[in-house]
Amino acid sequence: MQTVEVQLGARSYPIHIGEGLIDRGELILRHLDQKRVTIVTNDVVGPLYLERLQRTLQAVGVSCVAITLPDGEANKNWDSVSRILDTMLRERCERKTTVIALGGGVIGDVTGFAAAIYLRGIPFIQIPTTLLAQVDSSVGGKTGINHPLGKNMIGAFYQPRLVLADTAVLRTLPPRELSAGIAEVIKHGLILDAAFFEWLERDMEKLLVGDTHALTHVVRRSCEIKSEVVAGDERETAARALLNLGHTFGHAIEAGLSYGTWLHGEAVSAGMVLAARLSQRMGLLEERDVARTVRLLERANLPVRHPALGAERYLDLMRLDKKVESGKLRLVLLERIGKAFVTSEFAAQDLREVLEDNPAHA
Amino acid sequence: MQTVEVQLGARSYPIHIGEGLIDRGELILRHLDQKRVTIVTNDVVGPLYLERLQRTLQAVGVSCVAITLPDGEANKNWDSVSRILDTMLRERCERKTTVIALGGGVIGDVTGFAAAIYLRGIPFIQIPTTLLAQVDSSVGGKTGINHPLGKNMIGAFYQPRLVLADTAVLRTLPPRELSAGIAEVIKHGLILDAAFFEWLERDMEKLLVGDTHALTHVVRRSCEIKSEVVAGDERETAARALLNLGHTFGHAIEAGLSYGTWLHGEAVSAGMVLAARLSQRMGLLEERDVARTVRLLERANLPVRHPALGAERYLDLMRLDKKVESGKLRLVLLERIGKAFVTSEFAAQDLREVLEDNPAHA
Repeated sequence: MQTVEVQLGARSYPIHIGEGLIDRGELILRHLDQKRVTIVTNDVVGPLYLERLQRTLQAVGVSCVAITLPDGEANKNWDSVSRILDTMLRERCERKTTVIALGGGVIGDVTGFAAAIYLRGIPFIQIPTTLLAQVDSSVGGKTGINHPLGKNMIGAFYQPRLVLADTAVLRTLPPRELSAGIAEVIKHGLILDAAFFEWLERDMEKLLVGDTHALTHVVRRSCEIKSEVVAGDERETAARALLNLGHTFGHAIEAGLSYGTWLHGEAVSAGMVLAARLSQRMGLLEERDVARTVRLLERANLPVRHPALGAERYLDLMRLDKKVESGKLRLVLLERIGKAFVTSEFAAQDLREVLEDNPAHA
Repeated sequence: MQTVEVQLGARSYPIHIGEGLIDRGELILRHLDQKRVTIVTNDVVGPLYLERLQRTLQAVGVSCVAITLPDGEANKNWDSVSRILDTMLRERCERKTTVIALGGGVIGDVTGFAAAIYLRGIPFIQIPTTLLAQVDSSVGGKTGINHPLGKNMIGAFYQPRLVLADTAVLRTLPPRELSAGIAEVIKHGLILDAAFFEWLERDMEKLLVGDTHALTHVVRRSCEIKSEVVAGDERETAARALLNLGHTFGHAIEAGLSYGTWLHGEAVSAGMVLAARLSQRMGLLEERDVARTVRLLERANLPVRHPALGAERYLDLMRLDKKVESGKLRLVLLERIGKAFVTSEFAAQDLREVLEDNPAHA
């Protein structure tokens, strides 16, 4: 087992990474204020791991209430939050009752948001079961839900007490979901760590076949990179915005196709290519680095061409981004592999051309 | 104008108290990140003060979007929050767009909660228009909504940037609402400040006729007392619980009669009498102090007898309280006027008898 400590003062917490952590009740027990938890999962992850987690907890004397939500981004909404809150109220969960999210990013975001607003905040533990959630949602405390007018528009910054990233559960992950997680891993290399990007260029195939050491390495290194960024900027004022490389484009893709058509990681993959191409068109990034980026994403079986929504539709959707300031769009661009920056200084024409150029076929 | 600074580190903010502050655009302007605000009000306060506030803001170059909700505790629910969020999204409000709550406690709580969760948190200013909101909701950062299973069950701790308590607007307040606010003022004396309680015994009539100096004094002293308590305990772990004197009983009264039948302050008034009587029955508080408490509340035209719901129904409703820990009810009791404490040590039989004894007629 390896551990990354996320340093946030009074809100610091550990991320434990390794095989079979879901069976380690003592790791959870030491973070509980009360021998009682609510577990929130979905109808895909639940049948695989819920009983096992309940047995683990019961073995250390902890009683559980379980809530199973329908799977999918389409359920990242107020109805799901409301179901969690209703059940916790009916079960008389208290301020010291911990809620555990067992599932991917959607379950983590929805459950974390419910924990943030139930009785104005109760303890929260994450057991992420997708690579995407392990490398991305584990760090940063972003919780929330979608709104018909935009993704993640409603939510809270709320830190978990503990994250258990069990790499063994990634073996039951569909290949498409594994790839979607790798998109965020590649992003961490692109924005801040050229050596990590090179490691991925060397060992991508190990990752794709689910090699334990490769998985543990990328989860740990991703959590380290992300937690360094977040520790310096918990509420996303500056540095933290780098983590949004590809995301303004990606969110527009997800919203434009209606949530759930593309996986989040897939949309971010095509979005990072758009960011790289815009950077190149502006003379910031070399063509060679664009090609390396595209090549690595392709090897991870990720889409590198954005859907043909048309530039105007993209721009319209992108203006809803949370980073918009005084109506001005801000984007994360690349200077080289391992170095990104945030700017609102780019020519609208360059952006339009990149959006019109070389889209995927409908 | 007088000012109380609420000391909460990076989240500190001023409460300005005085006549006609609603016309002082410069006081607001210096706290805005962007010359654009959303104002949330209700259909009782809006017709009286919305246009005036909009003119004040326009005079300093600030554009406004206004949202008018229906008045009343029954609207302190997710629908109201949702209406605010929908409008802000449609109007493309950004992370730096401030939202202003213009109204009483319900508007403040609902609007503050919407501000807390919109884009994971945007700036928030309160202009409380009832005495209750000026002396109570101005300090503490408690925001939220009710749930069919309990009051204030969903919410967030979220601090405003600024509070403007304009005492002139209290002149349009119905007498019943003024009295409801005085209940919380009396509470501040009861829990922490015997001298303030004596001031109220001396000058209650000035307060009831809306004397400016009397109003400014009680708003300032209440904000001072509450902010001292809150500064030491922002997230309600210990000291802050004292502020709940009468509230566990009061919430049960409100829920038992269905929200809105009694005003919050009225329920707290009857709840404080119950707390005082239980304290006396346990030999903690002298009969003389119970009588002084009852007398002062009566002079403020507040109810001092609780509705006859029956002890079992009360106990059932009280078990939903947020202060319940491991199923154990905790209550704020009195040792003398000016000194309260929190305890879970009381005989269930004493509590039952106090609840059965001398209720109001149906």
